Formats: sequence, structure tokens, C-alpha cells
Amino acid sequence: MNSTAQEIRAVFEQYDHMMLTAHVSPDGDAIGSILGLYGWLAGQGKKVIAVIDDDIDDKFLFLPHADQICHPDAVHVDPSWLTVVLDATDLGRIGRVAGLIPGKVLNIDHHISNAHFADWEYVLPSYAATGEILTALFQEWQAHIDPAMADSLYMAIATDCGFFKFSNTTGHTLRMAAQLVDAGARPNIISEHLEAQPLVKLRALSEVLRHIELFGDNTVAGLAFSPELLKYTGEHTGTYIDYIRTIQGVDVAFTVKYVREAETRVSLRSKTVDVNAIAGVFGGGGHVRAAGCTIARPLQDAKNMVVKEILKAL
Amino acid sequence: MNSTAQEIRAVFEQYDHMMLTAHVSPDGDAIGSILGLYGWLAGQGKKVIAVIDDDIDDKFLFLPHADQICHPDAVHVDPSWLTVVLDATDLGRIGRVAGLIPGKVLNIDHHISNAHFADWEYVLPSYAATGEILTALFQEWQAHIDPAMADSLYMAIATDCGFFKFSNTTGHTLRMAAQLVDAGARPNIISEHLEAQPLVKLRALSEVLRHIELFGDNTVAGLAFSPELLKYTGEHTGTYIDYIRTIQGVDVAFTVKYVREAETRVSLRSKTVDVNAIAGVFGGGGHVRAAGCTIARPLQDAKNMVVKEILKAL
Repeated sequence: MNSTAQEIRAVFEQYDHMMLTAHVSPDGDAIGSILGLYGWLAGQGKKVIAVIDDDIDDKFLFLPHADQICHPDAVHVDPSWLTVVLDATDLGRIGRVAGLIPGKVLNIDHHISNAHFADWEYVLPSYAATGEILTALFQEWQAHIDPAMADSLYMAIATDCGFFKFSNTTGHTLRMAAQLVDAGARPNIISEHLEAQPLVKLRALSEVLRHIELFGDNTVAGLAFSPELLKYTGEHTGTYIDYIRTIQGVDVAFTVKYVREAETRVSLRSKTVDVNAIAGVFGGGGHVRAAGCTIARPLQDAKNMVVKEILKAL
Repeated sequence: MNSTAQEIRAVFEQYDHMMLTAHVSPDGDAIGSILGLYGWLAGQGKKVIAVIDDDIDDKFLFLPHADQICHPDAVHVDPSWLTVVLDATDLGRIGRVAGLIPGKVLNIDHHISNAHFADWEYVLPSYAATGEILTALFQEWQAHIDPAMADSLYMAIATDCGFFKFSNTTGHTLRMAAQLVDAGARPNIISEHLEAQPLVKLRALSEVLRHIELFGDNTVAGLAFSPELLKYTGEHTGTYIDYIRTIQGVDVAFTVKYVREAETRVSLRSKTVDVNAIAGVFGGGGHVRAAGCTIARPLQDAKNMVVKEILKAL
């Protein structure tokens, strides 16, 4: 049950010491939300610690205070501290930080799957990002957003709605972003830092693009991550399917990935076909337009089986 | 000298027949502005013709009325027609449509270099897109924006500010986009269509990425478009430099492109270095962070000369 915006503000006023955290594998919204709130609380004279049970990607380090986000083992707090859990649905999502919580917990989040675990909560699933919720709160409170806070919160919003390309982008999302640019956020600087990548990643992309195959009269596109290709990409291959998805005329995109000799991981995306049903054939599942499964067969066999099922479904 | 928003509305009310046009090599803002205005005027019962002296990229054809944009040879108008020139600085930018103009001209544009050539004009260089100006006009007029107009105008704005990543993105830009989403624009559908590309373009990108070279302690990245590489990419190579620019740690990005045996076209981009000065060494120029020149030497020689000058400037 959500507190009101004014009740949330009263909670912040009530505490002098606050520990801010967010989910492990922190994305732009997790980091940007922490830093935006950190900036405001520090400006109010509060003692604030930001902690995440994970490493912070270098690309976020241009943001003020980003270098002050610490690991759980560096944190010592007592029951006078409020814990603020941002962009996380439950305590299982914050890793070892859960073990540090000394007292009351406030949760600000936008995920529909929120577990409603906190002493106070402000959970708005219709918002595209936790950064969007924080910006709305600052507006409601008539709190001053300085340029550093604005950069962090714009980054939070923009990354969670794919720079205003995803279907979760609403008029409200864009109006909050507008407020932040008015307050000094620099979209060009933010996007420049987010998009910077080492040449080895571009080389890996080059190899991936070279290996895309078309099937079924060019309505199906797929890619096999063989052990050789994985040498270029590393294990984090999740984003490459987006390139395959965007090929003109393609309805179903898939990747098959070598796990071991007789184990292949399959990811499926579609524009119209029910890929949840296709994944189901192999004991997997997910959503209608994004699903996955694991097949206990070698890479090439698994690929052939997946292609066959997709062509049946078309 | 700009008319007021209400004066512009009065011009539209005064005419029953209108020919809408925009610049050749039409981009998202040119097409989206034409279609947004087309939708509104058609809804007002006006007879409207949209004409561009160029082909329309397939990726824009999902937008309503896009298939009705015709070539100049299909158009017959008389002096009772108003010509509306959108997103173009002067009549030289609209190709053969200039020869069709039978009477008065209204110009709506956002380029600082506008030549102020029209009978009525509404030129706002602080706006990121002509689509942003039109949205503001519709708002000022309290005109109804239907979902089809909203899609077209969102596309216009988003493409001209790189989906809210470029430095021309202002609070006003985002607020106009917010209005459009409220009116029914679908950011996900728009971006999906804009990003669709044939597999051959991804294969060309793969080849391009494979050929990037680093120099000067990895602060310079460059690419040579040899005749072999141009077989993959075709002649339109202008956007590839953006991939090179984003490499971590790179200050200066360049491409050299084979034109003929002793003629090489050079493009330069930078984060801090004055590439206008570097281009100037070879008789070219441009802006501090984006410039170009042509060198009357073979590709490899020209590349070496460019690298040498860049390293001197660093």
C-alpha cells in the first residue's frame, strides 16, 4: 500500500542517516536513481551511504558520486539508519545488502512484480523507470533538482525506456525528462558515455553479424553462438538478438548458444508468432513475444530442431 | 520575419488548395512534418498534395498517407494553390518542386541557415525539428492531433534529435513529444520501423567494423573505404563514422573513402580536437568537431597523411 508523496517526504525528513541501495546487476535506472536521490539527500545535509552488491560498469562513472557507491563489506550501519531500496522488487534482489539492513525500509520501485515488503513503499508500475518516480516526487515536493541530479535521473529514465523507443514510454515519462533537461541534464553527454564501447566489442559485433542466417523465406533469422564465436563475444550474449530482430521482414529471431557438448540454450523473439508455445515444445517458456528454453542436444541439432518448430508455427 | 502562430493559421484558412513539400533526400523530419500537416489539413476539408523531388525510403511507408507523397511530374497546380515548404532553408533545397510553385509560399523551418525567401515564414532555429514547430503550432491553435498525425510528428521530432540523445534536445522538444504520445503516438512501433534494415546492411556493417584501425595510443580510430569495402556498403557511407566515434577513449574518428585512383574523400569527427583545422591543411573545412576534405592522392597515401596531421594536433 503506497504512502503519499508527502508521507514519503516526511520519512526522509525523519532520518538523518540513510543507506541507499538497488538491485544487483545494476542497470542505468538502478544507478541513476541512487545517484539522483543521493544528490538531493546530501544537499539536505543528510549522511548518505550508497551501496550495491555488485561492480558498477565503467560507463556510469562520469556521473557525480558514482565512484562513492560501495560494496556491502565497506558498510557499517546501526538501527538509526533508514534503508532505501530503489528499483528492486524484493530483498532477494539486493544481494548481500539485505544482510546489512539495521531497521526500517523504504521501497521506491516501478516493477509490477513488486513483493510489497517494505515499511513504507511508493510503487508505481505505470511508470517506465524508478527515475521517473523520483523526478515526479521532486516535482511534487517542489524540491530543487541540480544539474548533477538531473543528469543521473535523465540517464535512469532514458535507459529504462530505450531512449523513448519502448512501449513503456508515456507522455508522463517524456514530461519528467523535459523537467530534467530544463534542470540541466545533458542528453548528448549522457548518451555519449552510455554508448562508448571498446573496439573489441565492435569486433565481436562484426563476427556476430557475419554469422546471421535466414530461414523460411527470410521471415526467420537466427544465430548460433558456437564456442568459436563465444571467444569473440564472451558469455554475455543477451543483447545481440536485438540486431537480429530488426532485420527487415523477419518475424521470428532466435539464438542458440553452446553451453556444453549436449546442452544448448535457446532464446526466441517475435513480432507476431507465439514463441512461448515454441519454447514450450522444449520444456521452456516466457512471454508470447520473448521466450527461451534449454535443449539437451548439441548446438547444430538444437538449431535444426528450433528452426523446424518455428517454421511449423509460421 | 516570422508571422505569429495565429497569422500562420489564418494563411491556412485562407486557402482551399495546398501543395506541401520538403527538401530532397528527405529525412524523418521532412517526411513526418509533411504527413503531420497533411493529416490536419485533410481533416479540415482542404485539398492537399504532398510532393517531394526524390524517392521515399521504404521505412517511412508505415505512416498514413506516406504512399501519397508524389513526384513533381505528377503534380498540376494553379495560382489558387498555396505552397508550403517544410524543413527547407531555400527553394534550392526542394529540387524540381521549385519550378511548380504557382503563387504564394509559406515556409516552416528550424534551420539557422534559413534564407528567408517566403511570403510568410515561421522559422524557429532553437527548435530541434520542424515537427516540433508544427506540434507547438497545433497546441497554440488548440487543434486536434489524431493518432496518425501524432505518429508522424513524433517520428519527425525523434529522428532529428537522435531519439532525444543530441544536444539540440530541449525541455520543449520533450514536452512536444509528450503531447504526441498523449495524442496516440506509438514510440515502439515508430522505432521498430525506423530500425528495420535488410540483412545486407548488417553484413556491410560487419565488414566495416572489421576494418576499423586504432592509432595514437588508441585515441584515434579510422577506417578506409577501399573499392572492396564499398562493394559491401554502397556509396552511402556517411553514418558509419558514428560507430567509430563511439569507441571508448577515442577523441578523433576519421574515414577515408576511395573516389578514384588519385582522389580520396576524408571525413573527420572529434570530441575535443579542432578537426576544422586539420581539414584546413588539405584545403577543406567544416566545424570544430566535424569537418571534411578531399585529397588528390591514392587512398593509402591520403590515410597516412591524415593520420600524421591528427597525431600532430593531439
